[in-house]
Amino acid sequence: MRMVDLIARKRDAGELTTDEINSFIGDYTADRIPDYQAAALLMAIYLRGMSRRETVDLTLAMAHSGDTLDLHDVAPFIVDKHSSGGVGDKTSLVVLPLVAAAGVPVGKMSGRGLGSSGGTLDKMESFTGWSSALSLAQFKRQLSDIGLVLAGQTRDLAPADGKLYALRDVTATVASLPLIAASIMSKKLAAGADAIVLDVKTGSGAFMPTVEAAEELARVMVDIGEDAGRRVVALISDMNQPLGHAVGNALEVREAIDTLRGDGPADFREHCRVVAGYMALLAGRAATLEEAEALIAAVWTDGRGLAKFRELVVAQGGDGAQVDDPARLPQARYVEPIEATRSGYITAMDTAELGWVCVRCGGGRLVKSDRVNPAVGFLLPVKIGDYIEKGQPIGKIHADDDMTLQQAQRDIPAAITVGDEPVPPRPLFYATIGAGE
Amino acid sequence: MRMVDLIARKRDAGELTTDEINSFIGDYTADRIPDYQAAALLMAIYLRGMSRRETVDLTLAMAHSGDTLDLHDVAPFIVDKHSSGGVGDKTSLVVLPLVAAAGVPVGKMSGRGLGSSGGTLDKMESFTGWSSALSLAQFKRQLSDIGLVLAGQTRDLAPADGKLYALRDVTATVASLPLIAASIMSKKLAAGADAIVLDVKTGSGAFMPTVEAAEELARVMVDIGEDAGRRVVALISDMNQPLGHAVGNALEVREAIDTLRGDGPADFREHCRVVAGYMALLAGRAATLEEAEALIAAVWTDGRGLAKFRELVVAQGGDGAQVDDPARLPQARYVEPIEATRSGYITAMDTAELGWVCVRCGGGRLVKSDRVNPAVGFLLPVKIGDYIEKGQPIGKIHADDDMTLQQAQRDIPAAITVGDEPVPPRPLFYATIGAGE
Repeated sequence: MRMVDLIARKRDAGELTTDEINSFIGDYTADRIPDYQAAALLMAIYLRGMSRRETVDLTLAMAHSGDTLDLHDVAPFIVDKHSSGGVGDKTSLVVLPLVAAAGVPVGKMSGRGLGSSGGTLDKMESFTGWSSALSLAQFKRQLSDIGLVLAGQTRDLAPADGKLYALRDVTATVASLPLIAASIMSKKLAAGADAIVLDVKTGSGAFMPTVEAAEELARVMVDIGEDAGRRVVALISDMNQPLGHAVGNALEVREAIDTLRGDGPADFREHCRVVAGYMALLAGRAATLEEAEALIAAVWTDGRGLAKFRELVVAQGGDGAQVDDPARLPQARYVEPIEATRSGYITAMDTAELGWVCVRCGGGRLVKSDRVNPAVGFLLPVKIGDYIEKGQPIGKIHADDDMTLQQAQRDIPAAITVGDEPVPPRPLFYATIGAGE
Repeated sequence: MRMVDLIARKRDAGELTTDEINSFIGDYTADRIPDYQAAALLMAIYLRGMSRRETVDLTLAMAHSGDTLDLHDVAPFIVDKHSSGGVGDKTSLVVLPLVAAAGVPVGKMSGRGLGSSGGTLDKMESFTGWSSALSLAQFKRQLSDIGLVLAGQTRDLAPADGKLYALRDVTATVASLPLIAASIMSKKLAAGADAIVLDVKTGSGAFMPTVEAAEELARVMVDIGEDAGRRVVALISDMNQPLGHAVGNALEVREAIDTLRGDGPADFREHCRVVAGYMALLAGRAATLEEAEALIAAVWTDGRGLAKFRELVVAQGGDGAQVDDPARLPQARYVEPIEATRSGYITAMDTAELGWVCVRCGGGRLVKSDRVNPAVGFLLPVKIGDYIEKGQPIGKIHADDDMTLQQAQRDIPAAITVGDEPVPPRPLFYATIGAGE
């Protein structure tokens, strides 16, 4: 295989063979192909696309580019979920304990936040002492013991993805459907998932701006999963406004605990109910979605979901008392209201910008090495379609210094569009693609 | 300027500004932009193209990426020629002395052969002692003294081109019209040409396979030249068979000397007459092409062209006696006939393959570091349209060892297609684009 011939074929809209894709991924991961050749191929893929077969081959090659996790010695069937990222998306904190409480072992690799999207590990680290740094033995033991574990992604899983992603980031080749799909799915396959619920967000706070684009990505990922012998469902969900009310790590943890207790914002509760239902369904715990949702509802109502969450916190070194009394979680120095700057109906939100407000308060990362302040963020309990009055408090900012506080007080209302005509509320879900459609 | 934004714009078929192109070329030449970002941009340019304005900007930025030559202190007007490369193309050896003898100073940077195409410097080095390694002062002194000088390209002229070409070669981005045109024209502009005659070859031995593709490339180069304030003519010429009869360095030198003496193959003589005529015309030595051709014919007939060639050889350390008696040029050990393997009309030649036969005999380069054997090659005095008889000697191979000799005896007839129906001879030229069209 001459790399330049592969580049030329894809450049001319041809197909790469399975062997060629395997060689490319193997050689690139082993530093035997220079970045400049990989960059040229990535741009050719960006502009020429990949067939379904090529995309599946690429995903499998990436999944097998390093270690793969096999958890079947401690759990008979592994179900995973993936969110394409959003603002206020603390779904994992609620659905993983619910699913685990319903008898489905969940051993999940999760990520950190970058840019306007938060990350599950950052949220969990709001608990004093909680750590995601587990050895494989620890990971398996905890999965076996309590049926729920949440760890950081190790570099040994799908290393080709990490290397390719870093290159895509600096060569304007991120936004390619086959490359996005292969990146996401390769990590899930390497982590040993038998079934995957994909939560593909669309809207002003999502990577995919339109429902159509999100559906297209979801379809590619479902196809990959099916061709790789996995059960996959993709839910197309709304990210035109933050999910729930809380944005910011400890604030989101509190909202997750409220939700596990049976309270919490209606949109977020409903979102969790559907995602958890599909996870239980794919795991084979029920014959129908209705039965699966009933199973989830049972462990939610009787407190077993919350108890499982507390187990997760304690098992990984966190302080269980902070679950029992969320007031013990990190608190920001200042809590000040956000005021509406005009009267009318909320017609739109610049959700990514709302995510950036939290980052600028210190609650997220501009670059990977940034440290995250768990205490800061905001609560925004208004939704598109709501009527608000000028001067009315529409939420609260939690900040640790005066400058970011005042900045957020200006930026948050500026990110909310208010109009004179009423608009309908946003749907939570647009479509379901895959096994359950 | 963020490089990734430039890549993204070109990826999306947008235009780069003059400043952005200047920054890219400046920063890439200075190693401030990594190869992988340049590779992604090159692939985006390959697939999305460049506007005329962008192509001109790229050419000028590359031309000014290092030193530029200004020869106006020793010559009032500089005319140059460029051939897109072919087999048996010894045109420079004849036209440069003719043009110089007609009173047009010629100070030319030339290249070496690579792959199936030969190079002028390799041919000239058939003369014992001849050297193309001249300092700028030597170059100018010779140009002033005898009006004709032929040097190797220095790395200080258009260094961006050398760096970009090396990257294109390994990223499958060579065959892009704006990139090819910018590469050729940037070197010509950096070398100080006021006027340029472009000899764009098309056919089985040329980079451009079809007349249409050659015309398209020629048009882009003529546009660049015009927008950069130069006088440019492009001739679209045939390379479906070797030019003249000789292929191989010393054999081509002998054919060039024969031609300057008034003999030589008819096709090659005619080719030189036209190219030299356009050079004299663009240099302003005549008001019309007919006058310019008459001027060239005069110095050709009276031997001043040949005398100027001898001056060039001697001025750069070569042995003038080899001009007077070409039998003193390097001779191959074996000279054996090439025999026709079937009877019929020659309908086509795989001209690139014929070039490779010479390379395999030792007369060219597979990689840049290969040394060239000046003595080897072949004479093939048959042309498309000729009738040949099976077993008839159709040419002679000059080889230095038995293995390559026998290989060439098989390979040359195999590269010639013979059919039963007569075909017309190939035209020498297809079109003229630019000032003279």
